Amino acid sequence: MINKKQVLKERPIGLPGKKTWELIEDKLQELDEGQMLIEQEYISLDPAMRGWINKTRSYIPPVEIGDVMRAGSVGKVIKTKGKTIFNIGDYVTGWGGVQNYCVTDGENFYKVDPEKAPMSYYIGILGMPGMTAYFGILEVGEIKQGDVVLVSGAAGAVGSVVGQIAKIKGCRVIGIAGGKSKCEYLIEKLGFDGAIDYKNENVSNGIKKYCPKGIDVYFDNVGGEILDSALIFLRKKARVVICGAISQYNTESEVKGPKNYLSLLVNRASMKGMVVLDYAPKYLEAMKQMAVWILEGKLFYKEDIHSGIENFRETFLRLFSGDKMGKLILKIKR
Amino acid sequence: MINKKQVLKERPIGLPGKKTWELIEDKLQELDEGQMLIEQEYISLDPAMRGWINKTRSYIPPVEIGDVMRAGSVGKVIKTKGKTIFNIGDYVTGWGGVQNYCVTDGENFYKVDPEKAPMSYYIGILGMPGMTAYFGILEVGEIKQGDVVLVSGAAGAVGSVVGQIAKIKGCRVIGIAGGKSKCEYLIEKLGFDGAIDYKNENVSNGIKKYCPKGIDVYFDNVGGEILDSALIFLRKKARVVICGAISQYNTESEVKGPKNYLSLLVNRASMKGMVVLDYAPKYLEAMKQMAVWILEGKLFYKEDIHSGIENFRETFLRLFSGDKMGKLILKIKR
Repeated sequence: MINKKQVLKERPIGLPGKKTWELIEDKLQELDEGQMLIEQEYISLDPAMRGWINKTRSYIPPVEIGDVMRAGSVGKVIKTKGKTIFNIGDYVTGWGGVQNYCVTDGENFYKVDPEKAPMSYYIGILGMPGMTAYFGILEVGEIKQGDVVLVSGAAGAVGSVVGQIAKIKGCRVIGIAGGKSKCEYLIEKLGFDGAIDYKNENVSNGIKKYCPKGIDVYFDNVGGEILDSALIFLRKKARVVICGAISQYNTESEVKGPKNYLSLLVNRASMKGMVVLDYAPKYLEAMKQMAVWILEGKLFYKEDIHSGIENFRETFLRLFSGDKMGKLILKIKR
Repeated sequence: MINKKQVLKERPIGLPGKKTWELIEDKLQELDEGQMLIEQEYISLDPAMRGWINKTRSYIPPVEIGDVMRAGSVGKVIKTKGKTIFNIGDYVTGWGGVQNYCVTDGENFYKVDPEKAPMSYYIGILGMPGMTAYFGILEVGEIKQGDVVLVSGAAGAVGSVVGQIAKIKGCRVIGIAGGKSKCEYLIEKLGFDGAIDYKNENVSNGIKKYCPKGIDVYFDNVGGEILDSALIFLRKKARVVICGAISQYNTESEVKGPKNYLSLLVNRASMKGMVVLDYAPKYLEAMKQMAVWILEGKLFYKEDIHSGIENFRETFLRLFSGDKMGKLILKIKR
């Protein structure tokens, strides 16, 4: 059996280019005792992956040159050897990487139920992005009823869920997204109270218009100038959740620091970073709650599924061009 | 009776210049019912005062052109009219401003006891700077025994107290200050575990040397590049207390944002602003504790007292040149 895999070849400066990854084919090795072979169906494409191919260690070690590109995945156990954690026919999610087949002893893999939700949901709204949104807005953002919540990357896999959870909790929610159709989607499909199109309007003016009394919680997925604009409008004791900084991940110069950070002082506000992995012991509880909200129609979820492991890079780049709508996924099962 | 006062004449760009304030003389008006006349003895000179003369509102409204320059002060009630909060002969501290005499109904003034501590202490270690240090490191920094605490502006009125309180609480304390004599003072007089001379050494190398396992709490009085260096060394769940940004107060260009702020994400750390005024209901409790520590010899305190209301600007500028040691005070009683 042949395994196709995207292997890190060269660390990029700026956006990943044609030499960043190489698609190679390998013959699958025999399994060792306790190992399973997973046929992978879907790969999650997330902005954080850009950080993993930098040389510096962040919250997890970098992907090394020659390694299969790290990615969250969902697939099916098709072969086992000896006593294994999962059985043939089980569906599992984990860090399967950008490859058709993955061999694992099951560590950090979780069994999922494709009858309860579409398989792809387990790498989206019921996976890392969903968990990030859930714990980020509830535990780090500490939202309460009546709060004014601003979220950037609002049409994305995390932002769209953040905003909807804040609505469920009785907050006033304003989203920032790029382009008219995304902004319409926020208002019409997700029930946001306002949407700011950063590609076509001045973000500060937009915040002033929709949040005349300021912001209680800003959930930041983008960094850069949008973060700086949000900081100006913090209310007393506001919370800024630093979840990501997509505008800065491909910068070829220095990361842009938030020059309005002294607004934290003036407003006795806080800026707090989060990494979803810290909440692993509570994933199950959150997944159950999210599933209920989906069934009740309170949580709307959209996927943007592309196909073919050979299209990995081009599809991944849509995260940064903004040329996608909802959770970006690559279907790699042939 | 003649009142000399420093009045704001022109908002400065960069460091306050000769035209920023004007020393004018006024005849004192008659008191109204309920008013008191205070003969002021000492004025507190603090970096925050630079922010108050910018046009933009921060945590308190700006000083307006033509107004007496705002300053904390301590003095004696020498005249009253009708029923007043304090009596003739009482010593009081409050926002008396940079003037020899101040007329007040007593709002936001507090009675002090010059027999328990030197009068000037009530605008220093037992006043705003002391309270800032106390609540900043204990309530915002949330230090616990064994924490590694880094403090900038460490030889200053706030920083020196922050570091000593952290030592009392069983932390390892490293200070950043400008110049060899200040650094010696931190180690020899204040009992710090390490001192980094930012004027003569590379701050990042210094932090690496003294905090090989990273920082649990960084108490920032300076902002700029030192804040950026500290961010690199945050440990998991570290707290950054934003108390001030003296390096940025006189900038003629944009404030420098901390480009390493994503260290907050990687390390699940927080950056939190504080304003001492929020803790007013608990000042008394803190003052008592600080007084005990002073008497026990655990809290060392140094003042740098200059004289003459006409020397206000030149003395104030010592805050930014670093040409002072300990709490900067202007004695204005003739």
